[in-house]
Amino acid sequence: MKGLFISFEGPDGCGKSTQIKLFADYLKARGFDVVITREPGGTPISEKIREVILDPANKEECDICEMLLYAAARAQHVAELIKPSVEAGKIVLCDRFVDSSIAYQAYGRGLGEQVEIVNGYAVQGLMPDITFFLSISAEEGMRRNKKTDKKDRLEQEALAFHDKVHEGYLKIVEKSKDRMIVIDASKSVDEVLEELKEKFEAFEARKALAK
Amino acid sequence: MKGLFISFEGPDGCGKSTQIKLFADYLKARGFDVVITREPGGTPISEKIREVILDPANKEECDICEMLLYAAARAQHVAELIKPSVEAGKIVLCDRFVDSSIAYQAYGRGLGEQVEIVNGYAVQGLMPDITFFLSISAEEGMRRNKKTDKKDRLEQEALAFHDKVHEGYLKIVEKSKDRMIVIDASKSVDEVLEELKEKFEAFEARKALAK
Repeated sequence: MKGLFISFEGPDGCGKSTQIKLFADYLKARGFDVVITREPGGTPISEKIREVILDPANKEECDICEMLLYAAARAQHVAELIKPSVEAGKIVLCDRFVDSSIAYQAYGRGLGEQVEIVNGYAVQGLMPDITFFLSISAEEGMRRNKKTDKKDRLEQEALAFHDKVHEGYLKIVEKSKDRMIVIDASKSVDEVLEELKEKFEAFEARKALAK
Repeated sequence: MKGLFISFEGPDGCGKSTQIKLFADYLKARGFDVVITREPGGTPISEKIREVILDPANKEECDICEMLLYAAARAQHVAELIKPSVEAGKIVLCDRFVDSSIAYQAYGRGLGEQVEIVNGYAVQGLMPDITFFLSISAEEGMRRNKKTDKKDRLEQEALAFHDKVHEGYLKIVEKSKDRMIVIDASKSVDEVLEELKEKFEAFEARKALAK
């Protein structure tokens, strides 16, 4: 039996990590075999690449280098973890995937369509069955994020950048309606989780009908 | 004054590093400002990426991940070192550049044209003015390499792979006649160096004529 690949997207501070944990508990309680993973990272090699990307000492890192490093980590993540897990019938919950690169690098950094082309090679034909986009304004995300003092390089970027990222996400939602589900992440943790469950159950129902 | 960008290509064991040092001495004696660098590497970030690529522990590294890592290291190398040096009027001598990716990944690993497309983004419009291809048979390269016991992951690859790489190099030579200069690297160190000098001086004469 083929499993499912579900990615979670949204700006820092939108609550992705909390929701992924709670949503995984819900799926496990229903008997699913669940794998939680994240990008950049998810495999030993990808985690090493993550260290290079997010090291605040690497201030000189050029945008194209950064974009290619994310894609490299993703290629390994897909080949070594995501694809085999989905093929083994598991549900993979991934904190960020290719849409993050499009939003942050193509739109945020202004690198344009090369990001989509490079990532097309990186994902090796595997795209999420569902992408939950936890929508929150850039201001609200930044505000929530201020709770922690230690910030990585990307989190130090200015609000103007995050606005461009948000615009990028909205364009992806428009373009990939078949898999993108927008969730209002300004609501309470419980309300957001309820919406995730509802949307997932609606997806299951559609899938069952299609059989 | 714009400088020059010269890359050195060829299989492991072809004598690139020795020749680069000797050729740099010759250029310096003639009063040129010379920068010696190598790929993957050449900048702090690129050297970190090099560690990930060449670590023998990373046996699980998928081909696409590897290809994207080389491209990422190259993008940084071009932006931070090669481009600024050439713009400052220096002669940059680089041990391997984009042709290595085409030969090793597109031909050797069979990844095809995506390698050229990705590297097109990585080099940001900068290609070598001259590429010296130090030609040597795969067997001879492997034989010379056996002098050292410690081998990195790539050097452990089989001879069949190196044959495909050699074929790849020959196709690049055919395709990029304007910048590729084939040198018979089976000759002695002194003979090879003499040929490099001759070809370089012929290049200078052509350049002077074109002015």
